[in-house]
Amino acid sequence: MNSPEHRDVEIDALRDSGNARRRDAIAVEEPLEIRLIREGDALNGGTGRPLSITMRTPGHDSELALGFLHGEGILETAHDVVAVGPCGPTGNVVRVTVRAELAFDDSKLARNFYTTSSCGVCGKASIDAVTASAGLRRVASDVVVSEATLRALPDRLRAAQSGFQQTGGMHAVGVFTPDGVLVTAREDVGRHNAMDKLVGAALRAGELPWSGRIVLLSGRASFELLQKAMMAGAPIVAAIGAPSTLAVELAESAGITLVAFLRSGGCNVYCHSSRVRPVRGRA
Amino acid sequence: MNSPEHRDVEIDALRDSGNARRRDAIAVEEPLEIRLIREGDALNGGTGRPLSITMRTPGHDSELALGFLHGEGILETAHDVVAVGPCGPTGNVVRVTVRAELAFDDSKLARNFYTTSSCGVCGKASIDAVTASAGLRRVASDVVVSEATLRALPDRLRAAQSGFQQTGGMHAVGVFTPDGVLVTAREDVGRHNAMDKLVGAALRAGELPWSGRIVLLSGRASFELLQKAMMAGAPIVAAIGAPSTLAVELAESAGITLVAFLRSGGCNVYCHSSRVRPVRGRA
Repeated sequence: MNSPEHRDVEIDALRDSGNARRRDAIAVEEPLEIRLIREGDALNGGTGRPLSITMRTPGHDSELALGFLHGEGILETAHDVVAVGPCGPTGNVVRVTVRAELAFDDSKLARNFYTTSSCGVCGKASIDAVTASAGLRRVASDVVVSEATLRALPDRLRAAQSGFQQTGGMHAVGVFTPDGVLVTAREDVGRHNAMDKLVGAALRAGELPWSGRIVLLSGRASFELLQKAMMAGAPIVAAIGAPSTLAVELAESAGITLVAFLRSGGCNVYCHSSRVRPVRGRA
Repeated sequence: MNSPEHRDVEIDALRDSGNARRRDAIAVEEPLEIRLIREGDALNGGTGRPLSITMRTPGHDSELALGFLHGEGILETAHDVVAVGPCGPTGNVVRVTVRAELAFDDSKLARNFYTTSSCGVCGKASIDAVTASAGLRRVASDVVVSEATLRALPDRLRAAQSGFQQTGGMHAVGVFTPDGVLVTAREDVGRHNAMDKLVGAALRAGELPWSGRIVLLSGRASFELLQKAMMAGAPIVAAIGAPSTLAVELAESAGITLVAFLRSGGCNVYCHSSRVRPVRGRA
């Protein structure tokens, strides 16, 4: 069955149990252009400035655009946004109209940043811009989560990953309460898109910053995902996969508790471990 | 033990069997700036034009730069390259000097494209540029691989993934003969970087195009990976993970045999299946 998120294709399934020609669902990947304009501006005939192209799974495109702009430090709250929606006939362009008086650094935007199905640091004009980006923010929160609650989260996220169940080819990001209740989850072929969609949904719902929330990544924890989580104020980020050095360094500097290799049987805590209450005592 | 590719950090390992404070290896992620200059050009004091920033695992940086430029259609063979190597004191900038008379579209480069740890389509100035990119190439090859040989490849690649064994956090790409012999493998936190490193190594060794080769991806098959494989002339691309719609469409158009969900117990073939000889007959 086709949907905006997955599409059936004919495949040859070669198996020990016998071969078959059958239909199989695969995750949709298509480019999305994000355009930005201030209200009342006539730039490019009112269509604004093309800011980023990302290879994403269609759906929740407006949230993706809002989350992306939040991660870049351009938007802070829903009050900064006048309108957001598709622009043009293809369905692959989304335009965000912001308050006329919104202050952001136009010269930064002039660099034109671009992102694809798994990136999110794209378009920085120098290495300093990549690592400094929108600037370091300290996440302050005294939220505590029990290790037992953490261990239960991967199964709860998986239950919400309908796209992954269909295709086996989509990342997910979920946001949970400290009691382990799933608030929202989003899926995408690109992990940074899934995060942008989640942040955009929270921004729309007035749920940012995520001071009392836990963010769970279905895959690995990279620098760009930690950067987006930092901008959203998440005190605890957990990943089912591995972290990178730069992810650990950013989490350490930003005051984020970073958990990785989270499984039902345990996890690793990389920094700011006081927010995790272990089942057994600490070594 | 530290290396350019992984670094030990202190972690809290929380397990059913007991908790421990111990050291664990994580994959290094750092930005790399790729600069391009024609021989004899004095652009930016001879340091050339900054073309791309990618979040990568250090090591094989020159190969990464060469592979990236090959994928973008800027380089065709090693004869196009006069010099390649680090530029400046940080170790995070690599400069490629090409023949003075090498023809490529400078106006395209002026768009400034940027990539991060899992992308590779970055910096296209429009959606058309993303999907058309360096242009469609048809891969012509009558190479055939047996399904039995294919099934054996994931274990052989895994045996070469020392970075993954250390960190659990690196992608790999390998290139094999039709008999299943591993020619070269590369690892990176970004799957497109691993592919660029592999293509760059083959370009240096005069092994392109990959007319008689099989390319194996440790993860999923995205559009950008198929695009790079197409530019390298690979007739068969196999992935251990899932494909995306755009990956299947590009493989179909470019004449590439696309295999995914490759396991010891079987695989799915998405297009141009005549290059795969099944263990059992076709359905």
